[in-house]
Amino acid sequence: MPAAEQTVLPQPSRAEIRIEQVLQALGDPVRLTLVRALATGPAVGIACGAVPLPVTKSTRTHHLRILREAGVITMRTEGTRRIAVLRRDDLDALYPGLLDGVLGAPH
Amino acid sequence: MPAAEQTVLPQPSRAEIRIEQVLQALGDPVRLTLVRALATGPAVGIACGAVPLPVTKSTRTHHLRILREAGVITMRTEGTRRIAVLRRDDLDALYPGLLDGVLGAPH
Repeated sequence: MPAAEQTVLPQPSRAEIRIEQVLQALGDPVRLTLVRALATGPAVGIACGAVPLPVTKSTRTHHLRILREAGVITMRTEGTRRIAVLRRDDLDALYPGLLDGVLGAPH
Repeated sequence: MPAAEQTVLPQPSRAEIRIEQVLQALGDPVRLTLVRALATGPAVGIACGAVPLPVTKSTRTHHLRILREAGVITMRTEGTRRIAVLRRDDLDALYPGLLDGVLGAPH
């Protein structure tokens, strides 16, 4: 079977990422659940539909778009699948400690 | 002159602080300006009206309330003045690295 064609969806470059947008993107329980799943998942990313969430498919898509446009995740299509990857290198370079502080939050 | 009577406005205890609320509170340019001013100001706090902001007094009050209710700042009245203090100890204890990552953000 040939490898599925891959397309990376539009996202801000590292220089275009803004702290206000990153904080807004992270400041939501559903989006935090997604980010936690990505942080503990494989580095190649996880299929966006694979994370259990108590929301509709369109709401899930909305949350993923906010994360992608803020620069928190990269999303690529592989055939009909959408794969998300946490932009840990970019976030750690711009805001050292931020992501670890968020991911380690006890509440 | 007798010391002005002090009253601390209601705020969540450390155990009641929630990461989503903190991130939402920090994810706004006006509130980030306030937090940066508090982080670099004296430890006893600064008068809330002293930080230059391009907003009306009622909008300033609104932003201060969001920061206080999220657990990011303590506010106390001293006579007719309102003094704000960053809850750095609480935030650093709950989310090590978060505040430094935000305050050091290049953009």
